[in-house]
Amino acid sequence: MSLAATPTGDTYVPLLEAELLRWVGTGDSMLELACLDALFPPGKLLRPVLCVESAKAVGGTADQVLAFAAGLECLHVASLVHDDIVDQDPVRRGRASTVEQYGLAEALVAGDGLSMAGIAALLSAGPAERVVRAARVTVEALRHMCQGLMRETEIRGDLTCGVPTALSIMRAKTAALTGAACQAGAILAGAAPRQHQALRRYGEQLGMAFQIRDDLLPYTAEDQVTGKTATSDVANLQPTLPVLLAYEAADEADRNRLTTVFRGGTDPVTAHRDILAVLTRTGALAKAARMASSRAEQARAELAGLPGGDQLAELATSAADRRR
Amino acid sequence: MSLAATPTGDTYVPLLEAELLRWVGTGDSMLELACLDALFPPGKLLRPVLCVESAKAVGGTADQVLAFAAGLECLHVASLVHDDIVDQDPVRRGRASTVEQYGLAEALVAGDGLSMAGIAALLSAGPAERVVRAARVTVEALRHMCQGLMRETEIRGDLTCGVPTALSIMRAKTAALTGAACQAGAILAGAAPRQHQALRRYGEQLGMAFQIRDDLLPYTAEDQVTGKTATSDVANLQPTLPVLLAYEAADEADRNRLTTVFRGGTDPVTAHRDILAVLTRTGALAKAARMASSRAEQARAELAGLPGGDQLAELATSAADRRR
Repeated sequence: MSLAATPTGDTYVPLLEAELLRWVGTGDSMLELACLDALFPPGKLLRPVLCVESAKAVGGTADQVLAFAAGLECLHVASLVHDDIVDQDPVRRGRASTVEQYGLAEALVAGDGLSMAGIAALLSAGPAERVVRAARVTVEALRHMCQGLMRETEIRGDLTCGVPTALSIMRAKTAALTGAACQAGAILAGAAPRQHQALRRYGEQLGMAFQIRDDLLPYTAEDQVTGKTATSDVANLQPTLPVLLAYEAADEADRNRLTTVFRGGTDPVTAHRDILAVLTRTGALAKAARMASSRAEQARAELAGLPGGDQLAELATSAADRRR
Repeated sequence: MSLAATPTGDTYVPLLEAELLRWVGTGDSMLELACLDALFPPGKLLRPVLCVESAKAVGGTADQVLAFAAGLECLHVASLVHDDIVDQDPVRRGRASTVEQYGLAEALVAGDGLSMAGIAALLSAGPAERVVRAARVTVEALRHMCQGLMRETEIRGDLTCGVPTALSIMRAKTAALTGAACQAGAILAGAAPRQHQALRRYGEQLGMAFQIRDDLLPYTAEDQVTGKTATSDVANLQPTLPVLLAYEAADEADRNRLTTVFRGGTDPVTAHRDILAVLTRTGALAKAARMASSRAEQARAELAGLPGGDQLAELATSAADRRR
């Protein structure tokens, strides 16, 4: 099961999509229209798939967590809608972003609406005691996500912020929620603490692998494949992990090249070409790819004590290997 | 107990403020700073006070609902922070709004962070089964709030949208959450369905009274008292209830005056003066005030079957009577 194949390859995905519709509505109002437009066609559905597979890995069923899993996707997409406002990003998943299509005020409210639809879905699932624990874990992750997003705006244009800062932002923006998705799925399925804690760590490591790969995509994939413009991070002067790895390893001439680009004003195509050259020369691309593989390996190691972790093991492998 | 006196007149208010701090943090990061800045000094604390008083009205204690009540305030203030982005409002509670002070991206993320701090606080309170029911009611109200906010952006500049539209937006933007605050407080205190449903209706009617008064404030209060500029709604071309009541009752000349202003371009001070004249001439100010009083009366009527509703009755009266 590859990440790309997941949405069509699994029988519960249509059920998941039906759940998404149930929580967001039929498009009767502009709010519902904007939310539907952000959700459909769905992306990789990584977080809901992690939630369902984690429930299954501890002996639960997809049914037990479907609504919760749909809520996770609503919350994730809500964060993307707001992200694109923050980054002034006109493109998302190969289409006009919500802010581009509906305007700023509308996208802001649509993000809020999706977020609350997501929370409502979380709270609808299963026995109250488990739901509260799973929802708490998830909301804690969403708070980390906000911390990460804010921190990201603070380091804009700052090439000296360091690799640990980039990793800590990834942990907050991505790994916290993938970890929570796994832990919540396991909690809802009645897992013992040792199990759901291991799954949380699995999800966090997978999230890191996924995000490290994500930051590499502008330099390894085609525009039309990622659904994002390759120059989006550079246009935002956002120093991503590969750039910071390169800056660390670069000689003075290459540091100056990066500094020039991150001072802003370079046209995006030239900027992208210059960065790619430095990233290749310094070995930053290869190093980041190794970091992703290592995280995936750590993720798989967490599955050791679980009855049924095969699907999750495959997901970790493909997260570190993806080309889109 | 008047709305204005509530924050200092009651012993549990300092506890409420301590709860707010507990959920938002100490100001260690820019996210926490922006959230603290939006929350403190606190406003009227209407929603948490309604939640606590509703719990007490059915025989519960403040202790049982303090964290939940603090969560309601975080969620309310989060909506204000986002509202001020949507309305490009530079002033809130007599100070620079979050967006004015921190910038758009930062205010957007601060609103999201406050919102998630609020949900975390809701989920921390009391027995799981009650918490889930109370949180569901609250999240449903927050979804209505998003609907109302979106609808509001759609009727900007439209004087023909009608009084029922303005009332329905108020219901969504304000009354849904005040109703939920009361119902949730009662649920957490273990109230019977008949009781917490009556309190929900009470809270909704009080919310309507409060919001009808709020829309009157630009025409009845001084700037420095409301903490908002008197011309803010007009600058946004937002047709509020009194304006729509006036438009309904106005002769052709006065309709033309309103239409001119709501076409935009009139300087704010002249616009405000022209509207005030029409509002007075058509009796719209008096009519709106009567509507607020009638809602307050309906709110008080809902308290009939409750053991201890005196504080709530007073709150309803002062909501319809406030001058700030």
